[in-house]
Amino acid sequence: MTRQQLIDQIKQKKSFLCVGLDTDLEKIPVHLLDKEDPIFEFNRAIIDATKEFAIAYKPNLAFYECLGVKGWESLRKTLEYIPSNCFTIADAKRGDIGNTSRYYAKTFFEYLNFDSVTVAPYMGADSVTPFQEFKDKWVILLALTSNKGALDFQFMTDVNGEELYKKVLRKSAKWGTDENLMYVVGATRAEGIGEVRKLVPNHFFLVPGVGAQGGSLQDVANYGWNKDCGLIVNSSRGIIYASNGTDFAQKAGLAAQEIQVEMAEIIKNKGFL
Amino acid sequence: MTRQQLIDQIKQKKSFLCVGLDTDLEKIPVHLLDKEDPIFEFNRAIIDATKEFAIAYKPNLAFYECLGVKGWESLRKTLEYIPSNCFTIADAKRGDIGNTSRYYAKTFFEYLNFDSVTVAPYMGADSVTPFQEFKDKWVILLALTSNKGALDFQFMTDVNGEELYKKVLRKSAKWGTDENLMYVVGATRAEGIGEVRKLVPNHFFLVPGVGAQGGSLQDVANYGWNKDCGLIVNSSRGIIYASNGTDFAQKAGLAAQEIQVEMAEIIKNKGFL
Repeated sequence: MTRQQLIDQIKQKKSFLCVGLDTDLEKIPVHLLDKEDPIFEFNRAIIDATKEFAIAYKPNLAFYECLGVKGWESLRKTLEYIPSNCFTIADAKRGDIGNTSRYYAKTFFEYLNFDSVTVAPYMGADSVTPFQEFKDKWVILLALTSNKGALDFQFMTDVNGEELYKKVLRKSAKWGTDENLMYVVGATRAEGIGEVRKLVPNHFFLVPGVGAQGGSLQDVANYGWNKDCGLIVNSSRGIIYASNGTDFAQKAGLAAQEIQVEMAEIIKNKGFL
Repeated sequence: MTRQQLIDQIKQKKSFLCVGLDTDLEKIPVHLLDKEDPIFEFNRAIIDATKEFAIAYKPNLAFYECLGVKGWESLRKTLEYIPSNCFTIADAKRGDIGNTSRYYAKTFFEYLNFDSVTVAPYMGADSVTPFQEFKDKWVILLALTSNKGALDFQFMTDVNGEELYKKVLRKSAKWGTDENLMYVVGATRAEGIGEVRKLVPNHFFLVPGVGAQGGSLQDVANYGWNKDCGLIVNSSRGIIYASNGTDFAQKAGLAAQEIQVEMAEIIKNKGFL
């Protein structure tokens, strides 16, 4: 998907919501467990109920890999089912030496046909750039994450006062463009989003941490908005586990709609139409 | 596998060699391609030919994931086939927020029954410690990698003169013990191995980069050896692709033996028997 197609999608749906498909056999409604492929049945119902309000879907690979061959099959079917106008994110946090990263890229961009994949920056340029050789595909690089452990290394400061996450932004911005590179910027560090925005004014951010992790949508928009919106805000548990009864899909749809309404208000206030 | 079992294995085989199973359909001998599971057939032959000389096997997940469901099946069969006295490493370089890392841990330690998994440190403690809750299982944390991109961030220096890779070592050493934590330290940075050894005198290192990537085994031993050997040195391409003819397994065995003979000499010189 191109940047322009993504922006068009945001304008059309008045939404910059991503639904995180962290689909967990231990958390989905029990009545699905006797289906042949409970994970896919759950995802299909969630997608049907939320696709009017969401512009992106983000399966986290951990939840599929732990089911082995079956999980990969559920993931593949899910990707085929997601409407083609929605942006798809493989939340995989990969990163390896060059020739190996190329195989991960093939996995996510060719075999599974994702639009994008999350990548960890620790191993540097040659672990990231192989993903950027695929046309209209995206790397979403970890910059400032939403978890507690982000404090362990990401704020390390060098002698010039530059923090590690800023160094990641500054260097990596040269490896790609705002047409093939986004950043993960956690909603739990709202001021941090503003710092990131200063360094990379044009890039899109994937923002996890709104909802269950405690981040505020309004803060994210205040600090992270750019001329093209520039935000994809993810919610996982707050939407997909809004209910664990037979009404799970309906409740997920309502939860997604609630966020979309708030997003539409932000979009209107920003004059982005 | 416990630390003592690993050490016993090293003494018994006079080897600290790990064979990297980066098994690639484009590189394996063509006569295998009409088998039902060429990847597994290749791995089985490589394991049979090298198990006398190797104490560990390290499949890199990228090469299996790119084949989807079939690749996972080949990987599962490979893991079952590796002799139980060999240490197994899932070279996956995972790392995610806590509840998600737990699912990756289940994938590698329970579903596939690996002894260890490589993990990236960027997201900090809560992305690493969930892997350490499994008895006799190991995290192998990226510290100083062998690729060119290692120079992008790993040598960043803070105001106290501490480099990022040293900070990773110092902090992470408190998250685990030398009974459940090892480090990836690339052979292409031999002096770096010495720096790492000063900071973590007792931990085992997984050392990639000997052979095709240009690192020297003798240098690795000079800089990285500790009282328990403390080294698992990996070779992938130099062994598994020693020949691409019908003699590939025999040639792989000879390549592994050549390294093992050099290792036995080092072990003897170090008086480690």
